Amino acid sequence: MSVKASFTQLRWKPFDIPKEDIDFVNGLRTVCGAGEPLSRNGCAIHIYVCNISMANSAFYNSDGDFLIVPQQGTLNITTEFGKLCVSPNEICVVQQGMRFSVGVQEPSRGYILEVYNAHFVLPNLGPIGANGLASPRDFLTPVAWYEDRDGHLFEALQGHSPFDVVAWHGNYVPYKYNLKHFMVINATAFDHADPSIFTVLTCPSEKPGVAIADFVIFPPRWAVQDHTFRPPYYHRNCMSEFMGLILGKYEAKEEGFLPGGASLHSMMTPHGPDADCFNSASTAKLTPSFMFETSLGLGLTEWGEHTCQKIDGDYFKCWQDIKKNFNPNWKPTPKE
Amino acid sequence: MSVKASFTQLRWKPFDIPKEDIDFVNGLRTVCGAGEPLSRNGCAIHIYVCNISMANSAFYNSDGDFLIVPQQGTLNITTEFGKLCVSPNEICVVQQGMRFSVGVQEPSRGYILEVYNAHFVLPNLGPIGANGLASPRDFLTPVAWYEDRDGHLFEALQGHSPFDVVAWHGNYVPYKYNLKHFMVINATAFDHADPSIFTVLTCPSEKPGVAIADFVIFPPRWAVQDHTFRPPYYHRNCMSEFMGLILGKYEAKEEGFLPGGASLHSMMTPHGPDADCFNSASTAKLTPSFMFETSLGLGLTEWGEHTCQKIDGDYFKCWQDIKKNFNPNWKPTPKE
Amino acid sequence: MSVKASFTQLRWKPFDIPKEDIDFVNGLRTVCGAGEPLSRNGCAIHIYVCNISMANSAFYNSDGDFLIVPQQGTLNITTEFGKLCVSPNEICVVQQGMRFSVGVQEPSRGYILEVYNAHFVLPNLGPIGANGLASPRDFLTPVAWYEDRDGHLFEALQGHSPFDVVAWHGNYVPYKYNLKHFMVINATAFDHADPSIFTVLTCPSEKPGVAIADFVIFPPRWAVQDHTFRPPYYHRNCMSEFMGLILGKYEAKEEGFLPGGASLHSMMTPHGPDADCFNSASTAKLTPSFMFETSLGLGLTEWGEHTCQKIDGDYFKCWQDIKKNFNPNWKPTPKE
Amino acid sequence: MSVKASFTQLRWKPFDIPKEDIDFVNGLRTVCGAGEPLSRNGCAIHIYVCNISMANSAFYNSDGDFLIVPQQGTLNITTEFGKLCVSPNEICVVQQGMRFSVGVQEPSRGYILEVYNAHFVLPNLGPIGANGLASPRDFLTPVAWYEDRDGHLFEALQGHSPFDVVAWHGNYVPYKYNLKHFMVINATAFDHADPSIFTVLTCPSEKPGVAIADFVIFPPRWAVQDHTFRPPYYHRNCMSEFMGLILGKYEAKEEGFLPGGASLHSMMTPHGPDADCFNSASTAKLTPSFMFETSLGLGLTEWGEHTCQKIDGDYFKCWQDIKKNFNPNWKPTPKE
Amino acid sequence: MSVKASFTQLRWKPFDIPKEDIDFVNGLRTVCGAGEPLSRNGCAIHIYVCNISMANSAFYNSDGDFLIVPQQGTLNITTEFGKLCVSPNEICVVQQGMRFSVGVQEPSRGYILEVYNAHFVLPNLGPIGANGLASPRDFLTPVAWYEDRDGHLFEALQGHSPFDVVAWHGNYVPYKYNLKHFMVINATAFDHADPSIFTVLTCPSEKPGVAIADFVIFPPRWAVQDHTFRPPYYHRNCMSEFMGLILGKYEAKEEGFLPGGASLHSMMTPHGPDADCFNSASTAKLTPSFMFETSLGLGLTEWGEHTCQKIDGDYFKCWQDIKKNFNPNWKPTPKE
Amino acid sequence: MSVKASFTQLRWKPFDIPKEDIDFVNGLRTVCGAGEPLSRNGCAIHIYVCNISMANSAFYNSDGDFLIVPQQGTLNITTEFGKLCVSPNEICVVQQGMRFSVGVQEPSRGYILEVYNAHFVLPNLGPIGANGLASPRDFLTPVAWYEDRDGHLFEALQGHSPFDVVAWHGNYVPYKYNLKHFMVINATAFDHADPSIFTVLTCPSEKPGVAIADFVIFPPRWAVQDHTFRPPYYHRNCMSEFMGLILGKYEAKEEGFLPGGASLHSMMTPHGPDADCFNSASTAKLTPSFMFETSLGLGLTEWGEHTCQKIDGDYFKCWQDIKKNFNPNWKPTPKE
Repeated sequence: MSVKASFTQLRWKPFDIPKEDIDFVNGLRTVCGAGEPLSRNGCAIHIYVCNISMANSAFYNSDGDFLIVPQQGTLNITTEFGKLCVSPNEICVVQQGMRFSVGVQEPSRGYILEVYNAHFVLPNLGPIGANGLASPRDFLTPVAWYEDRDGHLFEALQGHSPFDVVAWHGNYVPYKYNLKHFMVINATAFDHADPSIFTVLTCPSEKPGVAIADFVIFPPRWAVQDHTFRPPYYHRNCMSEFMGLILGKYEAKEEGFLPGGASLHSMMTPHGPDADCFNSASTAKLTPSFMFETSLGLGLTEWGEHTCQKIDGDYFKCWQDIKKNFNPNWKPTPKE
Repeated sequence: MSVKASFTQLRWKPFDIPKEDIDFVNGLRTVCGAGEPLSRNGCAIHIYVCNISMANSAFYNSDGDFLIVPQQGTLNITTEFGKLCVSPNEICVVQQGMRFSVGVQEPSRGYILEVYNAHFVLPNLGPIGANGLASPRDFLTPVAWYEDRDGHLFEALQGHSPFDVVAWHGNYVPYKYNLKHFMVINATAFDHADPSIFTVLTCPSEKPGVAIADFVIFPPRWAVQDHTFRPPYYHRNCMSEFMGLILGKYEAKEEGFLPGGASLHSMMTPHGPDADCFNSASTAKLTPSFMFETSLGLGLTEWGEHTCQKIDGDYFKCWQDIKKNFNPNWKPTPKE
Repeated sequence: MSVKASFTQLRWKPFDIPKEDIDFVNGLRTVCGAGEPLSRNGCAIHIYVCNISMANSAFYNSDGDFLIVPQQGTLNITTEFGKLCVSPNEICVVQQGMRFSVGVQEPSRGYILEVYNAHFVLPNLGPIGANGLASPRDFLTPVAWYEDRDGHLFEALQGHSPFDVVAWHGNYVPYKYNLKHFMVINATAFDHADPSIFTVLTCPSEKPGVAIADFVIFPPRWAVQDHTFRPPYYHRNCMSEFMGLILGKYEAKEEGFLPGGASLHSMMTPHGPDADCFNSASTAKLTPSFMFETSLGLGLTEWGEHTCQKIDGDYFKCWQDIKKNFNPNWKPTPKE
Repeated sequence: MSVKASFTQLRWKPFDIPKEDIDFVNGLRTVCGAGEPLSRNGCAIHIYVCNISMANSAFYNSDGDFLIVPQQGTLNITTEFGKLCVSPNEICVVQQGMRFSVGVQEPSRGYILEVYNAHFVLPNLGPIGANGLASPRDFLTPVAWYEDRDGHLFEALQGHSPFDVVAWHGNYVPYKYNLKHFMVINATAFDHADPSIFTVLTCPSEKPGVAIADFVIFPPRWAVQDHTFRPPYYHRNCMSEFMGLILGKYEAKEEGFLPGGASLHSMMTPHGPDADCFNSASTAKLTPSFMFETSLGLGLTEWGEHTCQKIDGDYFKCWQDIKKNFNPNWKPTPKE
Repeated sequence: MSVKASFTQLRWKPFDIPKEDIDFVNGLRTVCGAGEPLSRNGCAIHIYVCNISMANSAFYNSDGDFLIVPQQGTLNITTEFGKLCVSPNEICVVQQGMRFSVGVQEPSRGYILEVYNAHFVLPNLGPIGANGLASPRDFLTPVAWYEDRDGHLFEALQGHSPFDVVAWHGNYVPYKYNLKHFMVINATAFDHADPSIFTVLTCPSEKPGVAIADFVIFPPRWAVQDHTFRPPYYHRNCMSEFMGLILGKYEAKEEGFLPGGASLHSMMTPHGPDADCFNSASTAKLTPSFMFETSLGLGLTEWGEHTCQKIDGDYFKCWQDIKKNFNPNWKPTPKE
Repeated sequence: MSVKASFTQLRWKPFDIPKEDIDFVNGLRTVCGAGEPLSRNGCAIHIYVCNISMANSAFYNSDGDFLIVPQQGTLNITTEFGKLCVSPNEICVVQQGMRFSVGVQEPSRGYILEVYNAHFVLPNLGPIGANGLASPRDFLTPVAWYEDRDGHLFEALQGHSPFDVVAWHGNYVPYKYNLKHFMVINATAFDHADPSIFTVLTCPSEKPGVAIADFVIFPPRWAVQDHTFRPPYYHRNCMSEFMGLILGKYEAKEEGFLPGGASLHSMMTPHGPDADCFNSASTAKLTPSFMFETSLGLGLTEWGEHTCQKIDGDYFKCWQDIKKNFNPNWKPTPKE
């Protein structure tokens, strides 16, 4: 992966699913990333598009762990540990070194976050305590399944199926999670919480409180804060944010941000709701979107910057109609 | 402090404020505690009742830090660092070794949590991120103030005021906090969060995630969880819980738990809403109450168990009308 | 628990199982211990002797976790999580606050190690890596079981069974372990390993490498070290060692140390094989024995020191026939 | 050790060395302490006075490590590891469980700091880097030495010398240190450093930056700070300070604090130079004194408070002549 | 930044300030560095030269934090948080992502240390305790300041000033520090302390005791060590050292090392005083110099190695006149 | 070092020792590696071949520490700290920055593991306790030695020997270790231990339990496990494994793996005994081999992949005769 680093913020229109036959492995494209896998430091963000199942082949990745977010089409993933069926609004994690084969029955597309440093874990909940956000019991692992067949020798590297595993023990196993089980926690009196409160899974770095990458969702929830501007606030922060949309519309961008597309705000670039959203101050109907967030600087690949031809040249315009509201004489209304 | 350890759960009626003159120091009574201060491990819970100001005298405590919760009457506290005025629904912390003098203008009562191990800190927020719960900027420190007078020698130990300090620097300073500034975080889709999410201040132990003592409040907030029984759930846990009430009624005990009273549920004793509360499943109007929670076992002092004569012998009755609802054939309704 | 601290080393003959009816709770006796539970620091060692089942009663312990080592008689333990059947050469752990009831069908006896600080965990294996000693998969938890009956009101505190639990989730659950599954690791070329290599479970303190208490066994194994004196070496160390014997004879004491008895070597007291063992240098047939080892100083209770009347006054004699072998001119034979 | 906790500050005159024969073990007296050894938490401060050698006997202490500070008379200490000769202005450490025998040739007296938690270590030097304070190479260990004699059976517990050790390896070994090798670090431009900068050895607690006990000395050194009051400043802190004097006079107390005596300032009690010292602002000739400093609260034993009859009732007077210099209109002179 | 790694030690003559107009951003040049910012690991050393103010423009750096050391000319820095005026012998830190604009009134030059891993912090003082080196209260932050003007559209990216901030809270704020406030600590009896004792600020790595980069100064101070060679000793160490000089002469290099120049000694290259300095053993008048020290290997940029044309080819000569003093029969004089 | 990353597993035949004169420095070749030294992260694996001594020259390496494993020929290494003589079945470590000169008397060959992150340490033994694996006392350091000669100016950089050091103190010193002193620990009842149990030295990363590189040996030992397949099991793991052979045959590869050759299995590539070994299930005579194991991904250099011309194209064949033994109806025999 070769990446370039200079940019501020940009948006991709939905990535195309080709008409011609393409399977999951051949349909992988790297959009952006940082670091490199040999020294076990960094992450990458990929897009997959495919329309046929992998035939008589399996794949494994020695570089890192894959967190797969289907946006369109259900994935039937066969692993050494059994089978996982993963539909949009579900995610799955297939770790470093596991052999798997992906079956699909329709044109399919999704996002992948790959991390080289460590495995994904649930965030330490801190004062949230024992119940909240994603619960361990909602992560589903496959039940053992095997096939005993000799390999067909077309383009295969070994003479038997890699899936001849009858049972296993240990805890190194792929899993899936349905995003609707996320127990949302948020402000219930006034003011905004950080989006970190929507963290489903995190890949921690060695630095306490700093993640190599977080997987964050914006789930349906009650927004009940008094005296508070409801949409996400404007901010500039030390994380690079890559956002995707699974269905419907994103709550802070009324238009232009479409399912299957993406946006990237690199660290220290200010961003926030677009002008329409600011003006209507509406959260409207919340629909499933997510964010891959990293403390690293995400550099674009050649494909992500040019080849894919999906960068939306009008992205900057969505903030242009926001009026300057600066008033040095303004005073806050005290909370009574 | 000599404590006895055997008990399960009990409740005190409001502690009496005497008619005769009594100041803050003379009105301190220890209710329960654990450990001991010489080896810097443990905590104690005190009640104060007073109706006159400390005259020409100051006090300091070498054992630990005081977290003071006024329940009735405003405290005017003079310290070496300046003055603090602390009313009900505010709290203050006066640390180990600080000299202070307490003035009052009416019959006053409150609770004190003393810790020997360490100072109180804000909890590490974990995924709550940078904004939430108590905010550092809402903790108020005194401005410097001094008095230059020779000591009156009645019962005094030194010939001048201890408050002849013009300015100071450093960060070892008493502070106060108004509980209405607490930015409440809670479940906003379904299910219950742990009460740890209401932690204002914590005194950490050396064991990650285990507190010597927490100061937890139950503030006014929106309760918007779908498909969820609203009052606190029934539970049994590894913390000892001492609760007090500042004003009004506690949300899980409709009767009998009165401002100025207290309850204690020792670790591993099950507890939860009383029968009326369970039946009406109402949160009614939420009023300010709090909990001192500790990982230690709280033993009662002689005063707390007998001398104070405020233990409510009928406490156990509040659960007696709860019907057995056990039904082994019950099945959960799936979330759609 | 009140303990006295001065002693060096001693041995108890097997503790008597009474003829009259006695159940598990009434048959508990504390032998020695350190610290105290209110401040969550310390441990205790108990003996139980019983011959009838607990009838219509359940028990829970708020102080700490019980590690139970049956020496004679199988225990049928009913818990809120289901049932555990624990025979000699198996152990079980019932944690703080769990309600349980013990059934027996014959005269029964065993040892209990109670810890106040933390839960038992598997030791961090260090270079042993992923496989070795006790394996997580060999720890068995109960399957859910319940009973729905109204309480019989004879001497009971509540009007229904505490075991009306249909299902549970979480990881706070009692478990049992069969000592024959212990994968023994030891020296396979020359020299002795520390007995810490036989650690089954440990309750860690906050100090890295220092345990509140370890549960250590001396299992059957191949002893293949060349050029090495086979029995345990003589040593003096910073741990207090309480040993018990389940069946047969202990490898370093040919006589006098009997199943159901115990020995205690307090920290910094030298000890080692007795004279017979030294002279024959034989490991004979290895039989199951164990050690509770603690970094604390174990003080004797009144019962352990006097009431039980089982202290063996002749213990010191087992070393008296060891000859002085001191020879300042001795030189080691170099390893070729 | 039974201790009482209430006091502020006090001073002992030199402790008497009896006229009648008394050896090191019989001449040990405990002055103050905290915690207790069974649970491995705490420390104690002892005085020894003796005038004859221990004859045909050896001693070991299972409770903790001894840091011995001779004030008068040289100690000839025989250990299992060899011999140590320790004179005033040297110190030695004999750890938990080591057998040793003390020989003297004249009336001898000194101080002992005992710690139960951990061993003494050099402080982590922080920005001082690799060179400074006490250097590892200046700590001297004994060379191996043995005696091969059968025990004389008068009052002895074993029939041979415990010192029949020819050689050893490992790093658990007693050591001595000459205080003149301490590489003093201090302020060299302006202002005062904390006395922690004179730490020779520390026994750390589990809390970063908090010591169970420190051994601190006040060695001869250049005091070159410009614009700075030279004697120690007045302070009140969170450590209990027990001071002793080896020879000459202490720099902050011109009179009354004598070699062989001691003083104790419990935590949070203000203290500082006496009136004479304040007025002359002189450091005069610096002579060897030291401090045992602990984060624990030191309680007095009955012996230390009453039996020893050495408490100086006039201690408080040494500050009485200090004038009140309070001037609210004073302003600092800016550093140019 | 592309760097090359092979070199041992070298010295630059003062970097030229151009005659033509150049502002701070255009006058930045990178001399050397290590690592890279996308993966948040590394540092860089820059030189700035400028003679005009930044006009209608602001700058921010997403890569890391700038520690700016003016050597000639005062910087007037406008930030979102207010204004900082920084003169030679002062330093300032402007963190990642902050927008700032630099004004100057004369030809100006200085050094910049940039770190990608973490923010600068005060070193943990270890036994130095609470007072010493740089004190938190001497770091000055701006007071809030704003400007409300519409952007002039010449070459600007936004239509209003970025400095329209009226007030802020939080602790992410630029600051400045005057080096004369550094409370110097050093050896006051004999021997040398490590230069780490002059650390003003450090950017820690994840490895305890190992810094990504330190900012170290050599301030005026009393040098009072007895029996000790006064100049810095000869050494070879595991840090790369980049030195700069603000005014006057450096104490260990009498000639050739000039204000505005620099030197670099890469890790494991021996270095020390030059021959003149060694021979006169004089510290002469101490003048302000500093060191950027890093545990990384500093590779030179093309500009630093060739384009700048300031590398001093005669650097190696300064040690050539040091005579070989080797004498295998020499013995140290013992300290009396 | 430039490395390429794609490969699975391969094997080198013994590397050739040239006929023409070549010394240690000129005979160094890098085979594979990861990371890079400037940012202090990574490792490299080198081969050396030489037949003459380094003449009037010395070498030092600023990048990292060398762990040298002679396979043929004894190395006479002169360092600033004295001389080390290292023969096959011994290893030595020469750390970053040390000057050394290598003498040989015959054609010599060996392996070198270089690490950039940290120094090698003994592994934390965990439950192995205090005795086991490599013992600190068996690591031998040189005794001081010097030479006082003026440099001969042929190709030398300085006019005197770098070895004019009479004595030193500190603990940064090269050392050697004889592999026969390794106290082997292994399974003594049933089942396999991880090869991590053969770790001699480890270079830890910042991630607990994850090594930058381990040096692991397969020493002669008793293999006494009952009911267990004796050769190493088949596995796939998250470490890259580079193996070398000192003498004789490797226990899991009967043929083709020769002394002076090597093999590499990159992370997540399955591997295990070859077909002959599997079929005979014999451990035969164990001969000294070793493994450099790293958590990094090892990329091949151009030399290692092509120039050396030693890659064995038939490596994959050694597993081809293993039969498929898959039987879904197989059941384990329970341990009785």
